[in-house]
Amino acid sequence: MRFNFITLFPERIEAFFNTSVPGKALDKKIIEIHTIQLRDFAGNKHNRVDDTIYGGGPGMLLQIGPIYRALESLGENKGKVILLSASGETWNQELANEFAHFKEPITFLSGYYEGIDGRVSEHLVDREVALGNYVISSGDIAAICIADCISRLIPGYLGKISSLLEESHNESDVLEYPQYTKPREFMGWKVPDVLTDGNHKEIDLWREANRKKK
Amino acid sequence: MRFNFITLFPERIEAFFNTSVPGKALDKKIIEIHTIQLRDFAGNKHNRVDDTIYGGGPGMLLQIGPIYRALESLGENKGKVILLSASGETWNQELANEFAHFKEPITFLSGYYEGIDGRVSEHLVDREVALGNYVISSGDIAAICIADCISRLIPGYLGKISSLLEESHNESDVLEYPQYTKPREFMGWKVPDVLTDGNHKEIDLWREANRKKK
Repeated sequence: MRFNFITLFPERIEAFFNTSVPGKALDKKIIEIHTIQLRDFAGNKHNRVDDTIYGGGPGMLLQIGPIYRALESLGENKGKVILLSASGETWNQELANEFAHFKEPITFLSGYYEGIDGRVSEHLVDREVALGNYVISSGDIAAICIADCISRLIPGYLGKISSLLEESHNESDVLEYPQYTKPREFMGWKVPDVLTDGNHKEIDLWREANRKKK
Repeated sequence: MRFNFITLFPERIEAFFNTSVPGKALDKKIIEIHTIQLRDFAGNKHNRVDDTIYGGGPGMLLQIGPIYRALESLGENKGKVILLSASGETWNQELANEFAHFKEPITFLSGYYEGIDGRVSEHLVDREVALGNYVISSGDIAAICIADCISRLIPGYLGKISSLLEESHNESDVLEYPQYTKPREFMGWKVPDVLTDGNHKEIDLWREANRKKK
């Protein structure tokens, strides 16, 4: 899947996707990451992309012009345009499943603490999503988070598909049971005996009884 | 406020906090960011910090030993320890307000797609939080997101306190009205006349009527 990020800080996006799990997925071409520096589409010599708010108010807004031109520059690779915004629908695992099945690229449009000209939301985007019921100062973090959430549903992203199958959130609201690794005892805290005794029926029963619910 | 991040990928944390708004807040010492490389506390020559799961299961878990030692290394700067985990309480603006008033440092402990030995949650952390009802492959993104969400409530982080006061989520679920900036017309899409006419009473009425609700 191809993800485009229209951002003022491409280095944030790259710092995440070039490491670890996403880095390997990039190498294997399971995902493609393209960052687009919004300032390259400012259209003025100072590379300014924001201005004051009509009717008054604190701060600045990102202007529609640079965003429109950045989107146009993607041509047919634009795909679905997702605006990260506190007033969007709250992201959840069902949306992740839906988006993971998109055949087209996904283009993330990051707002910053200043906000974005309202015409962008009205005319240029397909979906508006929020990470949760809270405010953050940068859409970049939200875009990374959502791209990762979608990506991990794409076979190959996590290396072994099996890790994904047993995981929380794929089974409504039933969360995972506690898991333990070596050492068997640390600072007097012991791994439950049943998990180290090798009786798989007992292990399954213990795990079922110890699933956490939200 | 001091934030510590116990992570396998300090560069992700730094790429975010060294730029833009958080970068300026660091310069002004409004926030302090300390990253702790978990591998430095592996205690073995291969710097391994994970192992297989007792009782069987796909993937690996982060071990308790390195995490314990990384936390101890912080001494009295450890403060409150927050584990990022899909089974934690869902993060929201009320929690952000609560955490922004902490007098002590906050230490974020990032899990990865493998999970963490259950004894960490049982014995070493103060709070367990999730970004939302979805799964992501890295607690680093969640930690950055939550640290930013808390930081923006700290006077000075956003530069001008005023931007924060009018914002969404501070007033229950009433979200912001649309805002517009130059140009007044773009591709035939016009800014509502009332916002450019300079009548502040009319502007306030329009904004009140156009607040978005979730």
